[in-house]
Amino acid sequence: MLKTPYLLFLGDARDQLAAKVAKGIRDWRPEFALGQYRLPDCSADLGLPDMTMEEAKEAGVKTMVIGVANRGGVISDSWIEVMVQALEKGFDLASGLHKLLRNNPTLVAAAEKHGRQLIDVRIPQQEYPIATGEKRTGKRCLTVGTDCSVGKMYTALAVEKEMKQRGLNADFRATGQTGIMITGQGVPLDAIVADFMAGAIEMITPDNDPDHWDLIEGQGSLFHVSFSGVTLALIHGGQPDALILCHEPTRDHMRGIPNFKLPSLEAVRDMSLQMAHIVNPDCEVVGISINTAALAVDEANAYLKEVEDRMRLPAVDPFRHGAARLVDELEKIE
Amino acid sequence: MLKTPYLLFLGDARDQLAAKVAKGIRDWRPEFALGQYRLPDCSADLGLPDMTMEEAKEAGVKTMVIGVANRGGVISDSWIEVMVQALEKGFDLASGLHKLLRNNPTLVAAAEKHGRQLIDVRIPQQEYPIATGEKRTGKRCLTVGTDCSVGKMYTALAVEKEMKQRGLNADFRATGQTGIMITGQGVPLDAIVADFMAGAIEMITPDNDPDHWDLIEGQGSLFHVSFSGVTLALIHGGQPDALILCHEPTRDHMRGIPNFKLPSLEAVRDMSLQMAHIVNPDCEVVGISINTAALAVDEANAYLKEVEDRMRLPAVDPFRHGAARLVDELEKIE
Repeated sequence: MLKTPYLLFLGDARDQLAAKVAKGIRDWRPEFALGQYRLPDCSADLGLPDMTMEEAKEAGVKTMVIGVANRGGVISDSWIEVMVQALEKGFDLASGLHKLLRNNPTLVAAAEKHGRQLIDVRIPQQEYPIATGEKRTGKRCLTVGTDCSVGKMYTALAVEKEMKQRGLNADFRATGQTGIMITGQGVPLDAIVADFMAGAIEMITPDNDPDHWDLIEGQGSLFHVSFSGVTLALIHGGQPDALILCHEPTRDHMRGIPNFKLPSLEAVRDMSLQMAHIVNPDCEVVGISINTAALAVDEANAYLKEVEDRMRLPAVDPFRHGAARLVDELEKIE
Repeated sequence: MLKTPYLLFLGDARDQLAAKVAKGIRDWRPEFALGQYRLPDCSADLGLPDMTMEEAKEAGVKTMVIGVANRGGVISDSWIEVMVQALEKGFDLASGLHKLLRNNPTLVAAAEKHGRQLIDVRIPQQEYPIATGEKRTGKRCLTVGTDCSVGKMYTALAVEKEMKQRGLNADFRATGQTGIMITGQGVPLDAIVADFMAGAIEMITPDNDPDHWDLIEGQGSLFHVSFSGVTLALIHGGQPDALILCHEPTRDHMRGIPNFKLPSLEAVRDMSLQMAHIVNPDCEVVGISINTAALAVDEANAYLKEVEDRMRLPAVDPFRHGAARLVDELEKIE
């Protein structure tokens, strides 16, 4: 979908957080992140070489990735100028912004003139089939959560990294815009037409080697009434052999819906397994991933121990401790 | 969405079954079905007055509805000719065909010239919000099924009819193309972008009188791996007070996925209630609707009795027996 490697455009990012997408690429696909391009008032720095367009060209860059969240959804004139230079230089442009590249006439004209692609990863780039539910070869692990934004993408990427370090046969499968930007491919599931959601997931996790693992990025939650249908399509399209439960322990309520408390890990385990068993009777929950960023080290360790004792499953924060214990469990699955 | 009343275009329907959409309108919204328009080789007859365009105009028709499934998805020249006449006469055109009216240049030109609308009900006609899950006033009943195409639309329409005959305050809410054609409004849920599925259902079942019932047309099945996400969005967007289980007892396997057996009514009851209780803890299953068309009268009655005894809920075939016993149960809900 996206041609690699990348030049990461940080624009006028006001802080590191605004450059989250670029940081994700640097952390998870360093081999794609050849350099960064910053405007004069940029406050973010990924520690990558600052490159001119010419230097990026010589280094072999194929795509300039908009690695920054912009303010108010507007693409400013200073951005446009640099984007046009990138197109002139022969790079594609890729963006996950709400404001679509394809709706900017200046960019469309420049892309056409120079024969380059404008890739808005929020928008499906192809048609998808209706899911068949047919059993596929290879193995699949899906991250499911108590809520949105609890670390499902991070967990799947951390498991992939650990598996690759062990020499295992594994691929992260992106289902959201950030994941797609990081890996250069995937499905923007929340933008797919309803009838084709599960089919899109089947398509990105096809038949594979018997020892291969698809590590599928989860979305939403079966308990999040705004997006639960997307989550269920992931479970039924992904036909997982293994689930990892993801949770953030300090939330008062579910994201965006203040009247809803988070479900218990037990409830998510039970409901997810019931749903997964429709398409794969052998599916099991192998571990729990807790985002403890808001807890002090002592608190985090106590919380993880409590969850582990209660659920009788390994409970880790992959950011703090890596995903080794999760991969240990996945390696036990035949 | 569609202006009523209608002239029903039957085209060259080869039999009654090909005119299923038109028959649905005649049966469920007879006040909309002023007349029929048939081509010379039409083998269907709805028993409505055959009208010329002029007669339809005088009768007050606002929309000509394509009430027939065409062969091979092609809109033939003989159809186009009549459609253009309808546009000239001042009627909108509405269609649920795969082949879109809006993609036919002749129809687009004629519609523009005469200031009329081409309405492809398969395509969403507006944008929808993300669901909030906020509790709404009024009452809602959703039909859920063991499979696709087991009578969920028919059941909801039959309940609406019985409620209206009793003078109750009720509206059928269409979520598929046939339902939209019949009632002139609704949401083509399977064509909505994933993030907005539940929000679309919230939008068509808004706050209402405390005694009002929305009778929501179900789609798919929580157990149908191709479409389960759509079904879950209906449950979470619809926040039902009551569910009616729908089933067709002679199926070997789930529609379109031969490796999957139908779930039991008990499994559908339990899973649907678990999901509904996330958004409405008081939701209950009030009855069971069985499509017994493939059974002889004796077999049908024996089957219904067996289900009723086993599930301890009224089990009826609304086509054969009406929906009175289902409405009796709904009337008990405060």
